[in-house]
Amino acid sequence: MRIPEGLVYLDNNATTACAPEVVAAMEPYWGAAFGNAESAHFAGRLARRAVESARAAVSGALGADPGQVFFTSGATEGNNWIFQAFADSKSAARRVAVSAIEHKSVLNAARRLESFGFEVALLPVTQDGVVDLAAAREAIRPGTGLVSVQLANNETGVVQPVRELAELAHEAGAFFHCDAVQALGKMPFSLADLGVDSAAFSAHKIHGPKGAGFLFLRAGANRFPFPMPLAGGGQECGVRPGTHNVPGIVGLGRAMELLPDASALARMKAMRDAFETAALVAIPGSRVNGAGAERLPNTTNLFIPGVPSDILMDSLPLFCVSNGSACNTGAIDPSYVLQAMGLSRDKARNCIRVSTSVSTLETELQSFLNALRAAKDALK
Amino acid sequence: MRIPEGLVYLDNNATTACAPEVVAAMEPYWGAAFGNAESAHFAGRLARRAVESARAAVSGALGADPGQVFFTSGATEGNNWIFQAFADSKSAARRVAVSAIEHKSVLNAARRLESFGFEVALLPVTQDGVVDLAAAREAIRPGTGLVSVQLANNETGVVQPVRELAELAHEAGAFFHCDAVQALGKMPFSLADLGVDSAAFSAHKIHGPKGAGFLFLRAGANRFPFPMPLAGGGQECGVRPGTHNVPGIVGLGRAMELLPDASALARMKAMRDAFETAALVAIPGSRVNGAGAERLPNTTNLFIPGVPSDILMDSLPLFCVSNGSACNTGAIDPSYVLQAMGLSRDKARNCIRVSTSVSTLETELQSFLNALRAAKDALK
Repeated sequence: MRIPEGLVYLDNNATTACAPEVVAAMEPYWGAAFGNAESAHFAGRLARRAVESARAAVSGALGADPGQVFFTSGATEGNNWIFQAFADSKSAARRVAVSAIEHKSVLNAARRLESFGFEVALLPVTQDGVVDLAAAREAIRPGTGLVSVQLANNETGVVQPVRELAELAHEAGAFFHCDAVQALGKMPFSLADLGVDSAAFSAHKIHGPKGAGFLFLRAGANRFPFPMPLAGGGQECGVRPGTHNVPGIVGLGRAMELLPDASALARMKAMRDAFETAALVAIPGSRVNGAGAERLPNTTNLFIPGVPSDILMDSLPLFCVSNGSACNTGAIDPSYVLQAMGLSRDKARNCIRVSTSVSTLETELQSFLNALRAAKDALK
Repeated sequence: MRIPEGLVYLDNNATTACAPEVVAAMEPYWGAAFGNAESAHFAGRLARRAVESARAAVSGALGADPGQVFFTSGATEGNNWIFQAFADSKSAARRVAVSAIEHKSVLNAARRLESFGFEVALLPVTQDGVVDLAAAREAIRPGTGLVSVQLANNETGVVQPVRELAELAHEAGAFFHCDAVQALGKMPFSLADLGVDSAAFSAHKIHGPKGAGFLFLRAGANRFPFPMPLAGGGQECGVRPGTHNVPGIVGLGRAMELLPDASALARMKAMRDAFETAALVAIPGSRVNGAGAERLPNTTNLFIPGVPSDILMDSLPLFCVSNGSACNTGAIDPSYVLQAMGLSRDKARNCIRVSTSVSTLETELQSFLNALRAAKDALK
């Protein structure tokens, strides 16, 4: 079964379609060049060469060194890896600090550390969904061993002051990790400049394949300060043992080469801004969450008074939008991200997220807005 | 670049080519049906349905219940997950037992537990590479919390007495895990009958995609006795959070439907046996490691006197064979598996592994044997 013609997909922060170029790049590695990248024969060397080309593409796109890039199955694994490594280090600093609006793979990884005797500080955010630097300065005090803050929020698109937070972490002697999965491909950044000690990424958010991602470790594998949490065959310098997902890695490398340039991002932003302007007029009382902050150019989180988002989504079956992270689907609780920004539970329940990609059409956003208005009127 | 025509691939225990049916099954899920399986809209439900069909294919093929199957990125992750979960359980039993011939993802996961204060017992094997049950009975004593033994060895193909070992483990009050990655698709077994508490698998060993695998948990997610080691969005009932690798899971499901039947396995075994008979005649002094034990029908581990295997492999560039696990490539030490079977370091250095698939041709094995003999004679 396929997604039917006419369906409008506006949920690119949950996942994206693989670019045709990515599918084509992966194709030979399923059958014609299927070797194990660790095998010491022709088929193996062919696979290994493909893995190393992808690593060069990844590091080249982000101002990193190939020796700082380690392939994983995705950002959930990468985020967990950092918390596990820190816990295993038997650090004397028994405190970790994460923002209140982290993705669950960071938030729950931090909470998991509580059972090992660590204290978890949740960094609050402003009404616009930005980590509060004054509060962070208080919370990230000596005795803090690990700080983790995302580069951009998945629900609101709000960009976080990561450079400043990394500095605060380093002043306190803490390691700084960044879940950068939503920012990749939606804003330019250099890993060398951000000042983070590690960062986690997924390919499927940038029109690459699901099941592939990478971990950036500033210190590389040899000078990384914590023990490696995974044991095995030594692949990826021991950072991520296990047979390389060669096609997935190749697809990720190709997706990195296709990241939108500044003018594509500007077009994305202009289209999103026009949509928001029209939406605020069309739906009286509506509001864009995080509007006052710097945001990713593809994300709108819209408060719509009077109609719970799940009901609204059910009455718009031809439009794929979301009311929170896909990773929280099924949760009865309304978005903890929006509540951290000061929205009441009821208001948080009335918000939908629209997230575009480079291939989203203006007409798709227009037809969504028309349908949204009609559905809202019908439900009144 | 592709693997050239004329190259003979006899390294299927390292990895296999994706079956064309698997590539075709995955195809729609890259682009036409690319949704996030957790999304509460049409694109998401389409992906979720594909994931659950694959789960039914996996559980159906192995005598398991769908609620016992959890998708992972592969067996290295699955093996590590069990050891991490056990360590986190703060078990009073501070001893783990693994066979001396486990894959590194089990052996090193066990060794990693030593740094958390656990004692590791290595179960010895006989000269034929079978875990010694008498010695295991001594080693798996009360106070042992976790026992892990593979179903079949990756280097020799020797099948292990897992049912008996699981019973010993349970008598001692221990949890029994099985790395079953090499056995899948090469011998029939039912997970219900084996008596294991958990088992780890990878798709790429059965003509499925790299980057996909599954973990069998007899107790399911809710009654699993240890805490879940990974934190995140709750996917796979919390056993394996992270966006589902939908195409990979679909490919795995299709590969499970294509597992060779009894007659295909019998053909495989007949071809392998004929190869071994011819090899023992053609190469004076050669010997098949593990010959006296029950073995997978696709694996030959051949001792060849007088020529180190790496030199031999270098002089056979058109034949992809191995001299140990792909996960140990680059290691200076000769196979620890063969040494555990009593081979000297020198003898272990002189062994090569040939592993076929259902598509291997008799003529390929013949031309390999001819080339092997010629290379050996040239190197003398």
